[in-house]
Amino acid sequence: MQKVGILTSGGDASGMNAAIRAVVRTALYHQMEAYGIHLGFEGLMAGNFDPMSRGSVADIIHRGGTILQTSRSQIFMTGNGREKARDELQKRGIQNLVIIGGNGSLRGGYELGKLGINVIGIPATIDNDIVYTRSIGFDTAVNTALEAINRIRDTATSHGRIFIIEVMGRHCGEIALAAGVAGGAESILIPEIETDLDEVTRKIKQGTQRGKLHSIIILAEGVYPVMELAQEIEKRTGKDTRVSILGHTQRGGTPTAVDRIMASRMGMAAVDFIVEGKRNIMVAEEGDRILPVPLQEVIRGTRTPELAMFEIARILSI
Amino acid sequence: MQKVGILTSGGDASGMNAAIRAVVRTALYHQMEAYGIHLGFEGLMAGNFDPMSRGSVADIIHRGGTILQTSRSQIFMTGNGREKARDELQKRGIQNLVIIGGNGSLRGGYELGKLGINVIGIPATIDNDIVYTRSIGFDTAVNTALEAINRIRDTATSHGRIFIIEVMGRHCGEIALAAGVAGGAESILIPEIETDLDEVTRKIKQGTQRGKLHSIIILAEGVYPVMELAQEIEKRTGKDTRVSILGHTQRGGTPTAVDRIMASRMGMAAVDFIVEGKRNIMVAEEGDRILPVPLQEVIRGTRTPELAMFEIARILSI
Amino acid sequence: MQKVGILTSGGDASGMNAAIRAVVRTALYHQMEAYGIHLGFEGLMAGNFDPMSRGSVADIIHRGGTILQTSRSQIFMTGNGREKARDELQKRGIQNLVIIGGNGSLRGGYELGKLGINVIGIPATIDNDIVYTRSIGFDTAVNTALEAINRIRDTATSHGRIFIIEVMGRHCGEIALAAGVAGGAESILIPEIETDLDEVTRKIKQGTQRGKLHSIIILAEGVYPVMELAQEIEKRTGKDTRVSILGHTQRGGTPTAVDRIMASRMGMAAVDFIVEGKRNIMVAEEGDRILPVPLQEVIRGTRTPELAMFEIARILSI
Amino acid sequence: MQKVGILTSGGDASGMNAAIRAVVRTALYHQMEAYGIHLGFEGLMAGNFDPMSRGSVADIIHRGGTILQTSRSQIFMTGNGREKARDELQKRGIQNLVIIGGNGSLRGGYELGKLGINVIGIPATIDNDIVYTRSIGFDTAVNTALEAINRIRDTATSHGRIFIIEVMGRHCGEIALAAGVAGGAESILIPEIETDLDEVTRKIKQGTQRGKLHSIIILAEGVYPVMELAQEIEKRTGKDTRVSILGHTQRGGTPTAVDRIMASRMGMAAVDFIVEGKRNIMVAEEGDRILPVPLQEVIRGTRTPELAMFEIARILSI
Repeated sequence: MQKVGILTSGGDASGMNAAIRAVVRTALYHQMEAYGIHLGFEGLMAGNFDPMSRGSVADIIHRGGTILQTSRSQIFMTGNGREKARDELQKRGIQNLVIIGGNGSLRGGYELGKLGINVIGIPATIDNDIVYTRSIGFDTAVNTALEAINRIRDTATSHGRIFIIEVMGRHCGEIALAAGVAGGAESILIPEIETDLDEVTRKIKQGTQRGKLHSIIILAEGVYPVMELAQEIEKRTGKDTRVSILGHTQRGGTPTAVDRIMASRMGMAAVDFIVEGKRNIMVAEEGDRILPVPLQEVIRGTRTPELAMFEIARILSI
Repeated sequence: MQKVGILTSGGDASGMNAAIRAVVRTALYHQMEAYGIHLGFEGLMAGNFDPMSRGSVADIIHRGGTILQTSRSQIFMTGNGREKARDELQKRGIQNLVIIGGNGSLRGGYELGKLGINVIGIPATIDNDIVYTRSIGFDTAVNTALEAINRIRDTATSHGRIFIIEVMGRHCGEIALAAGVAGGAESILIPEIETDLDEVTRKIKQGTQRGKLHSIIILAEGVYPVMELAQEIEKRTGKDTRVSILGHTQRGGTPTAVDRIMASRMGMAAVDFIVEGKRNIMVAEEGDRILPVPLQEVIRGTRTPELAMFEIARILSI
Repeated sequence: MQKVGILTSGGDASGMNAAIRAVVRTALYHQMEAYGIHLGFEGLMAGNFDPMSRGSVADIIHRGGTILQTSRSQIFMTGNGREKARDELQKRGIQNLVIIGGNGSLRGGYELGKLGINVIGIPATIDNDIVYTRSIGFDTAVNTALEAINRIRDTATSHGRIFIIEVMGRHCGEIALAAGVAGGAESILIPEIETDLDEVTRKIKQGTQRGKLHSIIILAEGVYPVMELAQEIEKRTGKDTRVSILGHTQRGGTPTAVDRIMASRMGMAAVDFIVEGKRNIMVAEEGDRILPVPLQEVIRGTRTPELAMFEIARILSI
Repeated sequence: MQKVGILTSGGDASGMNAAIRAVVRTALYHQMEAYGIHLGFEGLMAGNFDPMSRGSVADIIHRGGTILQTSRSQIFMTGNGREKARDELQKRGIQNLVIIGGNGSLRGGYELGKLGINVIGIPATIDNDIVYTRSIGFDTAVNTALEAINRIRDTATSHGRIFIIEVMGRHCGEIALAAGVAGGAESILIPEIETDLDEVTRKIKQGTQRGKLHSIIILAEGVYPVMELAQEIEKRTGKDTRVSILGHTQRGGTPTAVDRIMASRMGMAAVDFIVEGKRNIMVAEEGDRILPVPLQEVIRGTRTPELAMFEIARILSI
């Protein structure tokens, strides 16, 4: 009989619980045993395993975070760590491991796969920076950012202010682009496109001339030090400029329908791929299709955000 | 110089305002004149037109409903009505008309196109029943249904009850399927699949045996009279069974990120297609691509929901 | 050592969990033992008790419904039932019982008190119809109704329609009044004031003359058959009139700050009153003060809603 | 005929629009003329007045911010500024001015009252630091903070982390206390009570011993530099400690039922007090009653938060 382990790793993303539920229930449906591994790779190496039943994943589909908890492990990045992990799986007869996480976690999974474990990755990260697929947690994060933008828009309008809203995504402008286009922001600053403060300033001045009551700038964290940016813009425009850093509020909360459905699908597909004999792949969602992509390709790729979104923002925010 | 008229028609869908904004601003960007037409085809025939400026679509991207208002017109369904409509457009020199609405509205647009107007359709209906594309308003409606399911789940659990939640979608089970999968419902009843009350009852009884505290059934309206269904299930299971009809609350509210972005893209593409010389097409979103689809094909097609979703629900709700 | 039992009874109300948490933790703070009783009076008579620890009420303050589940019991209404209940408490040495619920539950508690148990009531019902106090769950229910009104307002405006929104409160217009005033409804129909359809119609016509795009009427359930009301108003005004029944969605959901704080205070006060030797009282919140009110007075009183709210609605909705 | 001017001043608070609506409509009901003054005292001095009709306050009761916009004025703090303001009112024959704002704005209003204008204050500030009354905007701010705490709780639990959440309230711990009690925070740090880091650390360690997965600390801004606090706690506990600064998101957003109803009542009472001949008072809500309080007393008083809340937090968070 096949056995499958499940863990969540790296930063938490909303929808991870829906994925855990789907993996467990599909595994049970196929007469497999399912084992929950606590605290990510740390728990994997420490042998922190629990058998999962139908009931153990009841009433979690709507919860943010991950009931299996998560961690970022340094030790797993070493050969010794991964051998320990493999041993823990093998001594329980668990041949398959579903890893729910981001790029770093999938990279770890790829390395573990070389040691003989069949690793199936499920992409989950609010950054949406995994190649060949959309990621669980991104839609929830963007909608959370949007709610904050809605709130700040009220204040910005009431005071006639400029607001800079810093969203997550250190290496990837996806959240900033999506929240900026959906939030009707005047400017969006992302790592993939060089920041042009002259352009930012020019748009604000143009807007003021046309009677705009406020300006909202979305900044992906790390692109520019946010306080310095505020001072610079205030100096150039002469307008009161304030900052809001959304931070960790973007991670949690009840997952959206998109994230729950994607997580349910991917979780189910992960087990179906095991049944079909696929090895060391990531479950990818491209358009409306679910595909297996070799982990090897995933870790070599680099995702570039859809820059057409930048163009949409540029034209529609005028 | 090109001129473009814009109207919203049929049932309102959240995100229509974001589409109006995108059409207007892209038109202005391309040096076109844009005219808002109030109250759908009724206003079109009555000559209820207003020139639109950048400012007239400011601060609407986050608003539900439609600032142009909407209607369902019987008269437009006649040849006389459509000739009147064409005349109103032509006497203002408006060659292009963007219609934001559902199947009925696109059908009306197709007929109007035969009279010499260039009609560009943008699919917007919470039912998501337009062929070849996703529709604006669906994601918001599903998320609103999910919120209601979350609330009812608390009550269902507290009382150990069965709840039947009726969602919209008279001819199409898309909302029911999506809300049912994302909400973790035990059973989903849709028009595309024959209702099997024995199966519904069997699942409830199984769940009760395994210690489940509640059961949630999602019903697409019109599939079964909801009160009769409740009585039948109560009789068969011996469990207290309650009904909640979500109704019109599913239509409105702030649009989600998905609906705002899709609406922005489609609105922009509608004008781009005019610039490119496309005629009498609908803007479609398939996977991540935006495509023109001839209106003729749209009105002939019939959309079938993705029944794989039904299978997902079946396996994951056990 | 003192022991205290806790149960929730009747319709669930959001904030019940926050009250349970407060009772349990305050009891433990005072070195008492705390026992959770499942499924209300049914569980009380059946001896369905569990000792509660600090951890057993962790992470519940933000959850709707009640982790102890609830029921409506016919048997407890008989003398035999209550004697059984008293025996179950006495054989465990539990002298004090905290009952979290509405008027019916407090009445049951009063009767049980006559048999020698010290009963402390905590008022929890979305109807807010308990005399001398505000009730847990009301603020959440009103805010949920408001969200629905916001959504429906979008649709009502888009179509220029009249909407009748039926809210809970069969014998008490509190939810209707609060949701109506806060939602800016044109008319509010409650059991405490005779419905004047001429007045309702007159306001709609006046509004239409002044260019109002929609009318929203809030109806407390049971005041008038909602479908008949819609037909009557449609007939009299000639305007499209739709209905939305909020139903059970008003009960659940994450409690608001007001409900969580009131529940925390009342739960703590319930135990403090036990420590002070109070017997057979309800914890009441009047203004900013927490007071003990004899259960005897509670069950005799009849609450009348603040009809000044009706006057506010009348003047502000013009 | 009486005339009444209305302005909003200082930081915006959710519910200000509901108050504006109530003042305007009650004034019209009493046959007064109502004038909206834009941008607070700045607009007052600049003569930025507009007559208000019933329609000009339609569909604003549910909007955050203020349609009249607001400002913080230095010039109005001088005698010359206030004389200019008085002249602008008198030359239009406006004898009464309703000021919706916080302590600074009421102080300005008191000074203006000395120059012969009848000033009626309506307390509106998310800080809830005005004496003798609750303030409009506070309930919305606390509920917004709670939503953020809910989201962060998911992440905190998933990673087993400590989170410090900084809320608004530089001189007043009201938001921190309410959000802390309602959010089930382990510690609450406010300006009114000296911070005891040993106690904070002790509670975290105790919690960890009892198996708690996370700790949440609520910090009123300005009490302690938040980054230093995080480092200190991380050092003392050895646990990963993160920071989230809620900032301006607390100000805006759709007002809650409590804020809309309070604003409607106070706005109506403001005009009623004018009709009754009251002069230079603030409308106060104490318990369930609306009272006039002389502005002179308001500006002399100092509000102390209800420290019983601190005790509730201490006992219930164990």
